Amino acid sequence: MKIIVDAMGGDNAPEEVVLGALEAVKNLDLDVVLVGNEEKIRRYITTPAPKIEVVNAAEVIGNDEPPVAAIRTKKDASIPKGMRLLKEGQGSAMVSAGSTGALMAGGLFILGRFEGVERPAIATLVPTRKKPALLLDIGANSDSKPRNLVQFAVMGSVYSREILGVEKPRVGLLNIGVEEEKGSNAVKTAYGILKGLKDINFGGNAEARDFFDGDFDVVVCDGFVGNIFLKTVEGFGSFLLDQLKTEVKGKLTYSIGALLIKPALKAVKARMDYSEYGGAMFLGLDGILIKCHGSSDRKAIFNGIKMAKQFAESDVHLKLKKALIDIEGELSP
Amino acid sequence: MKIIVDAMGGDNAPEEVVLGALEAVKNLDLDVVLVGNEEKIRRYITTPAPKIEVVNAAEVIGNDEPPVAAIRTKKDASIPKGMRLLKEGQGSAMVSAGSTGALMAGGLFILGRFEGVERPAIATLVPTRKKPALLLDIGANSDSKPRNLVQFAVMGSVYSREILGVEKPRVGLLNIGVEEEKGSNAVKTAYGILKGLKDINFGGNAEARDFFDGDFDVVVCDGFVGNIFLKTVEGFGSFLLDQLKTEVKGKLTYSIGALLIKPALKAVKARMDYSEYGGAMFLGLDGILIKCHGSSDRKAIFNGIKMAKQFAESDVHLKLKKALIDIEGELSP
Repeated sequence: MKIIVDAMGGDNAPEEVVLGALEAVKNLDLDVVLVGNEEKIRRYITTPAPKIEVVNAAEVIGNDEPPVAAIRTKKDASIPKGMRLLKEGQGSAMVSAGSTGALMAGGLFILGRFEGVERPAIATLVPTRKKPALLLDIGANSDSKPRNLVQFAVMGSVYSREILGVEKPRVGLLNIGVEEEKGSNAVKTAYGILKGLKDINFGGNAEARDFFDGDFDVVVCDGFVGNIFLKTVEGFGSFLLDQLKTEVKGKLTYSIGALLIKPALKAVKARMDYSEYGGAMFLGLDGILIKCHGSSDRKAIFNGIKMAKQFAESDVHLKLKKALIDIEGELSP
Repeated sequence: MKIIVDAMGGDNAPEEVVLGALEAVKNLDLDVVLVGNEEKIRRYITTPAPKIEVVNAAEVIGNDEPPVAAIRTKKDASIPKGMRLLKEGQGSAMVSAGSTGALMAGGLFILGRFEGVERPAIATLVPTRKKPALLLDIGANSDSKPRNLVQFAVMGSVYSREILGVEKPRVGLLNIGVEEEKGSNAVKTAYGILKGLKDINFGGNAEARDFFDGDFDVVVCDGFVGNIFLKTVEGFGSFLLDQLKTEVKGKLTYSIGALLIKPALKAVKARMDYSEYGGAMFLGLDGILIKCHGSSDRKAIFNGIKMAKQFAESDVHLKLKKALIDIEGELSP
């Protein structure tokens, strides 16, 4: 199996991406195609690496570039070039830590969507008190319609069952209360559709406060809301840990406090760290695309490649496609 | 000055509410009208309290009752009864730890809205690395339109200036990116209006991740989004502190770990605790209404009464009304 990796994506590219890819070919029984500035990439391949292929890409798309324009004008950048290789079947999946917007735009233009999918979703695993829950959409789409939310539920269920091995994934709708009549118009309508679907184990509304209890395997929301949720977790987590450090430092002498609290804080941060979970996946695109965090180090890239392999080895992609076609009849009003 | 207090609202009513009110008349130079089950209320008034008046209310509206129906059918419940007293001018403001939905429904039916306000907002203070930021709306309205978001910005600005003493409150729009073209359709349109308003110190988009840096005095969002934000903070905060406790217990012996970490955790929790901030306020209703958290103890009730007094003493209510009328011309397309 061959995995295509965007060597230029993310804050630590290409060094950490190349090192993560080297680690992957060493341990995972796969080949990697690195797409990017060949000269820069080769600097970090210091010993022979027969399972690594380098494909030169003359340009890079930055995080601050308007995605659609960038995909259209920088045809030789690493993201669109890698995607064309994927489309041509020269790899089974693609991994990138680059711009989410450019990945989505490239995905739509180059890979295309599954039949009936207006909006692909981005899904990620979020830790809870029990096992991590799959949250989608986390930022691809604002103003989701009920049919989008229902498709997210279908795709999340298939993914949870086929890749994470959850037999009957319990699906929740992220909402501001547990009652059926709570929430925005789109969420209320989606609730009505979801409770009638026999292939979905719908558990009703999931309150943001209860999310971390881990009673849902899949939690579905509009991309604006999911993005706010994740970034709130990120921002508040860092704020809270800082407050705690200050508090401990104030109470004990600095050195004792730091000594005692630092390893605990570090361990908790590591447990929250999404590099552990390999990254986020685009669901609904006609191709396997894994997005690693922009600040990914070699370990996160390695885990992203591992996830891509797992995805490509299963037939979840075809099952997603089929589940979406099966549901289509229930979505047309 | 007389403050009307719903004695039956919240998990600890009427005991903690009555005790909070007794504390308030003792320390704050005001009178309190307690509305609720007179017999139960009087049990907690054990010494003469000439500054407390009790008005009997035969019913109570529970948190799980459909708000509109409850307000319509239980006319003698403490919430509608208190509001009628407020409307009649028998008090300057009302405080309740009861059902948010019932308070909003009662507010709309009994107190009425300011001219041009389709949707009153609920605002609350949220701690940050600098001073607390005013967040609104936190749950009164889903599917906010651009004009609602702009009104929230106007009301938040007036409140921040007049009550919190911030000279030129910096207003942010809660969003998934800092760029103007990011976000939902409503947010993008609101951005366009806000940047053209000369009376608002608009600072652009506020990312959820950066919220806690405290660079905004007022942060505006749809009620669904604000509620998700606050409940994520609540749920994730408790999860994170639990994780940390477990980590510390695992690394040190239980007793040493608990000894060292507990006071720090408690202090941080206290700093996050919104009983400190007195409660949330309804902005856009034609009457001063303060909502305390459902789990309020006497201190939270005391702070809610204090906030109500401060609100009533200022002329912020009239300034809010005027600011909304001033803005109306900019909102009509």
